[in-house]
Amino acid sequence: MTFKASILTLYPDMFPGPLGASLAGRALERGDWELEARQIRDHATDRHRSVDDTPAGGGAGMVLRADVLARAIDATSPPEDPRPRLLMSPRGRPLTQSLVRDIGAGPGVVIVCGRFEGVDERVITGRGLTEVSIGDYILSGGEIAAMVLLDAVVRLIPGVMGNAESGALESFETGLLEHPHYTRPRSFEGQDIPPILASGDHARIDAWRREEAERLTRERRPDLWQAHTRTQPPADGPGKAENR
Amino acid sequence: MTFKASILTLYPDMFPGPLGASLAGRALERGDWELEARQIRDHATDRHRSVDDTPAGGGAGMVLRADVLARAIDATSPPEDPRPRLLMSPRGRPLTQSLVRDIGAGPGVVIVCGRFEGVDERVITGRGLTEVSIGDYILSGGEIAAMVLLDAVVRLIPGVMGNAESGALESFETGLLEHPHYTRPRSFEGQDIPPILASGDHARIDAWRREEAERLTRERRPDLWQAHTRTQPPADGPGKAENR
Repeated sequence: MTFKASILTLYPDMFPGPLGASLAGRALERGDWELEARQIRDHATDRHRSVDDTPAGGGAGMVLRADVLARAIDATSPPEDPRPRLLMSPRGRPLTQSLVRDIGAGPGVVIVCGRFEGVDERVITGRGLTEVSIGDYILSGGEIAAMVLLDAVVRLIPGVMGNAESGALESFETGLLEHPHYTRPRSFEGQDIPPILASGDHARIDAWRREEAERLTRERRPDLWQAHTRTQPPADGPGKAENR
Repeated sequence: MTFKASILTLYPDMFPGPLGASLAGRALERGDWELEARQIRDHATDRHRSVDDTPAGGGAGMVLRADVLARAIDATSPPEDPRPRLLMSPRGRPLTQSLVRDIGAGPGVVIVCGRFEGVDERVITGRGLTEVSIGDYILSGGEIAAMVLLDAVVRLIPGVMGNAESGALESFETGLLEHPHYTRPRSFEGQDIPPILASGDHARIDAWRREEAERLTRERRPDLWQAHTRTQPPADGPGKAENR
């Protein structure tokens, strides 16, 4: 079954946008995944086609109406739709590579893109929307966040990445940041490629890359390093366990 | 001075993409900010216009060449350019709302979008690129990540957001996730707007919103809650200090 993404947005023309080019775009053309962007405003009922209103209790900004959005969701994703329904929101569960894998393993995804100050809470609970956040910063809407999520998911769909090996050893898949990369020319402005990489000794190269990945993770992301060392047994761990 | 963003990419046609619509797009049309996307490949010198090569030491994927990318950077951002030079990369410093504010307060930004397995380390150090990550997941390239950063920055440029107040009290600006929002209709599928929001008592409404924001932050993001309680003195803190 083809992975199918349905986007609910006030800006359907933004799609596929950057998802129409490069890796994701070629996969879309081949039919490796499907994308539809639907206009929330088509489900407004008043003559001004209003989708938002002022916040109950006062305050700045506008809030996306529960009734309009619920109709848009129901028209796109009936109750029996097995796809998860997400709302891109800075209040949401942080997107991680593990969540990307979970979503990519499923039949597809329905993504609601918020705009304005927010979305009426009652449609979030009433339609079982899972709030997902791509990071701790504020965007003008959920559309670019949805593109982030889809780009991350689509590249993992079987057949999309040219080289199956690429992707297995990159940042986060090992719980570490990636080691430094080098390519030709051998000398660049007086800086040579580290000699070990030209040694042909693959065991030593792998060890060097591992050390560099560990060093970068310790220096730059103590939070990831802590999580990594908690889940990885020490090098002699399993052996000791067998000796018990 | 107008905030100017220069993007170095293998997919200049992706820009402005979603940044050409809505808030960021209208601001771009008005000239509140400037955007240029430049083709890295224009700085290749061989007849195949190669920009990448195999990784030194072996392994999957391709690496963006230091010499080609350095020429592209130099043509876009001479040494005296005061703008920070960023490389969108999962190994980078995590993007936060505070970093967004710092970038937005400056004259603009030069953003290098990586593709393939990575970028030759020597151009990162040689051209002083600051690696920035939008989150702990892997994208097919830096382009959508650059759009995330720019969308977050542009909405803070004076005059871009319609309502100056909106933006001050949202998620992360207070160190808390946002409280729930409600708007008309008063009743939606049997669920009413919380009565307190119709009370007209703004002090009580503010207190309720604050409690809800604190509750959501505690429940969903213990990491943010911990950081928040570390930086905020307890309610009676300043009074006690005065009594010393």
